[in-house]
Amino acid sequence: MFHYTRKAQYHETDQMGVIHHANYIKWMEEARVAFLDALGFGYVDIEREGVVSPVVGISIDYRRPTMFSDEVEIGVRILKYSTRMLEIGYEIRNLTRGTLAAEGISKHCYLRDGAVVSLRTALPKLDALLSAYMESDENRSE
Amino acid sequence: MFHYTRKAQYHETDQMGVIHHANYIKWMEEARVAFLDALGFGYVDIEREGVVSPVVGISIDYRRPTMFSDEVEIGVRILKYSTRMLEIGYEIRNLTRGTLAAEGISKHCYLRDGAVVSLRTALPKLDALLSAYMESDENRSE
Amino acid sequence: MFHYTRKAQYHETDQMGVIHHANYIKWMEEARVAFLDALGFGYVDIEREGVVSPVVGISIDYRRPTMFSDEVEIGVRILKYSTRMLEIGYEIRNLTRGTLAAEGISKHCYLRDGAVVSLRTALPKLDALLSAYMESDENRSE
Amino acid sequence: MFHYTRKAQYHETDQMGVIHHANYIKWMEEARVAFLDALGFGYVDIEREGVVSPVVGISIDYRRPTMFSDEVEIGVRILKYSTRMLEIGYEIRNLTRGTLAAEGISKHCYLRDGAVVSLRTALPKLDALLSAYMESDENRSE
Repeated sequence: MFHYTRKAQYHETDQMGVIHHANYIKWMEEARVAFLDALGFGYVDIEREGVVSPVVGISIDYRRPTMFSDEVEIGVRILKYSTRMLEIGYEIRNLTRGTLAAEGISKHCYLRDGAVVSLRTALPKLDALLSAYMESDENRSE
Repeated sequence: MFHYTRKAQYHETDQMGVIHHANYIKWMEEARVAFLDALGFGYVDIEREGVVSPVVGISIDYRRPTMFSDEVEIGVRILKYSTRMLEIGYEIRNLTRGTLAAEGISKHCYLRDGAVVSLRTALPKLDALLSAYMESDENRSE
Repeated sequence: MFHYTRKAQYHETDQMGVIHHANYIKWMEEARVAFLDALGFGYVDIEREGVVSPVVGISIDYRRPTMFSDEVEIGVRILKYSTRMLEIGYEIRNLTRGTLAAEGISKHCYLRDGAVVSLRTALPKLDALLSAYMESDENRSE
Repeated sequence: MFHYTRKAQYHETDQMGVIHHANYIKWMEEARVAFLDALGFGYVDIEREGVVSPVVGISIDYRRPTMFSDEVEIGVRILKYSTRMLEIGYEIRNLTRGTLAAEGISKHCYLRDGAVVSLRTALPKLDALLSAYMESDENRSE
């Protein structure tokens, strides 16, 4: 599992006194971006090749609230990968409170000129990196 | 189904040239807030009684992109209601393009002083309104 | 003065229990977008012509807090216009509380292919509309 | 000058292909929060004492665009401090591109129970830290 760490910000709180739930989607994106960068073929590389990677589905289970200034660690792993669809899992841990804050899933396809493409033909390097990571010991929940 | 309408804003776009997917969660919240206001017992009323209503789960299927300046209509209906858990369904229609942009679900519990409460005892008026709406002809998908 | 009205949303609050100050910049943008639409040459038209209009400066004085669910009215007027630089003034009124919430200014230039352009040559229709509005009785503070 | 570093995120871009201007206000807040933490009396400490610190004014000059994935460093220094009003200056540098992205100023007062308070009496420790930092060699632009 790849790990991305950041602090919960004041501008992310709401009047319940906790981090507003919409921000977890942004944290998942930040962690996914950092994961692909670490893998060696990031969003900048993807878009330079004329490919975009829209989100086609999101689900999040919120377990424990996150407060302003808490340190959170987002674990990222590949759940499914099939050259046309990537499914990523997330575990958001609150390091300050020692709690599991949330678990999430995002699903992605790949588009070039508005049409769905297979990563194997459109971005073979990324295809190879995702396949290899998925098979590796790294890609497990913790 | 209750309907809430708004425009997609420039500050909601991303560099793919579409509305960033995190904003749909905010739109669902806006529609839910307007729905409870229309029902007669809104978030302001709920919080005035010392109760907060955190989101415990979210899922969204993104169907078609929304662009800046598009008019969107968010349909809201109660999927399940059990005094301690409320599940709401959303249909986000793009009126400008005549497409179904997304479908979503949110789940909510109710807390007073950090403890889960039953709406029947904590907020009987809201409990009655939710129960009645759920039974009504209004509460159907379209 | 052109007027744009909207409600303060729950996702815009912070843990002080008020609308977070960064959102006023988004409200100013929403009002500016609606103003140009009403003028007859909006952001969609501008960008269709290959021109973008970045913000080069912002200033805001915050007067009175805005709370969740408050109705706000953003008044918009042209402060200065010189074909290469547009300066817009904003008065954000809280209709629910009868207060002046904030006053702001935004400054904009116009770019085509990364280079500053004069609206008179790049977008003569918009140039004429802005010049005419600025001279009109409509364009005054209230 | 205190320095706070972070990356520009995908969810912060807009359809011009640059970071949306409203995010700079959030970055300034993040840098200010980190600055007060480093000083030894952060926002969590301030609010624990029943004091809140609203923003009463913001101004930003945008110099050069920031793109997704750029590394930005926000320099923070105290411009003025008078026990009832704090004025902070920001220099936002794009480390990836070697440019000055923006310069900004924020002004803050301190409130307890809705009334303006003097930091000297309300939070003497923070008052001493701010006064000392302002006099120090650290507190200069670069």
